[in-house]
Amino acid sequence: MPINELIHSLSKMPGVGHRLAQRMTLFLLKNEKVAIAQLVGALQNVYNNVHKCKCCGNFSSAHICNICSDSKRDATQLCIVETVSDLWALERAKFFNGRYHILGGVLSAIDNVGPDKLTIHGLLERMQSGKIEEVIIALSATIEGQSTLFYLMDVLEPFHVRISSLAQGVPIGGELNYLDNATLSAAFQDRRLLAS
Amino acid sequence: MPINELIHSLSKMPGVGHRLAQRMTLFLLKNEKVAIAQLVGALQNVYNNVHKCKCCGNFSSAHICNICSDSKRDATQLCIVETVSDLWALERAKFFNGRYHILGGVLSAIDNVGPDKLTIHGLLERMQSGKIEEVIIALSATIEGQSTLFYLMDVLEPFHVRISSLAQGVPIGGELNYLDNATLSAAFQDRRLLAS
Repeated sequence: MPINELIHSLSKMPGVGHRLAQRMTLFLLKNEKVAIAQLVGALQNVYNNVHKCKCCGNFSSAHICNICSDSKRDATQLCIVETVSDLWALERAKFFNGRYHILGGVLSAIDNVGPDKLTIHGLLERMQSGKIEEVIIALSATIEGQSTLFYLMDVLEPFHVRISSLAQGVPIGGELNYLDNATLSAAFQDRRLLAS
Repeated sequence: MPINELIHSLSKMPGVGHRLAQRMTLFLLKNEKVAIAQLVGALQNVYNNVHKCKCCGNFSSAHICNICSDSKRDATQLCIVETVSDLWALERAKFFNGRYHILGGVLSAIDNVGPDKLTIHGLLERMQSGKIEEVIIALSATIEGQSTLFYLMDVLEPFHVRISSLAQGVPIGGELNYLDNATLSAAFQDRRLLAS
């Protein structure tokens, strides 16, 4: 039954349950199915024209994405993130003007992700260009993220560049009594000296 | 930019905001875009094969939907609903074994919906078959729904069939102190006599 198959396809997407998939399907079927034709067009356009940027791994309709090809962005700063959605999150916040490298995940023994599954090779090629002066490692604050951080520090050591990772601590607006112990402990250890 | 166009297309759907559309887009782009191909296939299948049932107006891949063509369902009971989603809601609850008629909306002077915009003509044709003995009018309990109810009663009067509408009152599990005044008043007026 085509309708049920469409509901099933839609409900496989993140954040979409069966009820929402039903509502979306009814929306698509309304008005002589104009919305279906539009959505199919948009999907086919993405399918045919969007590829991974040869340089950083971001999704782009050009061979080199608009961040890597933007000469106004600082080519000396490289921010390493796990996924494109992390890049989008940083871009939404609009404070970083350097470039990115999408790692494609983090090292994980459980999920059988070794260095060969990540874009380490591409990263080293970019480092060899010699332009990069600072690498900001923006990985998840999980065990896998932190072990990947140490691995990256080893790999990047020969290039003698500044390497930093994101600060850990109390999130802005966060109330202490709702914070988990690990965050509290990290915030305490990395406390900022205001006067001495 | 194809990605932004897809996010825009997805975020036009009900219940889907910009963030969810972004998550959906990233999900679709993962794994060599297999999910895009599947979704496009499902959408095209619906686009090409799903039509309105000639009889009741439900969506179906056949000319006559599986409810209208099911000989086990009671052809003497006809339930009039506004939209296919109302039909789906009643079918989910699995207590009604008759057939449906999708009105396609309700009369509305503000939205310029007159009787000619609704499937009144098809309804009268079905009534003329003479099989229908009871009509259950299951429209929204809004002013438009109720004025459509009165219009339908006028139109159905010549057929001398039993006509009923849904009961109004306290929803199951509803707490009195959270109910609106109109519902409370309706529940009070239609109070059930338990002993006299």
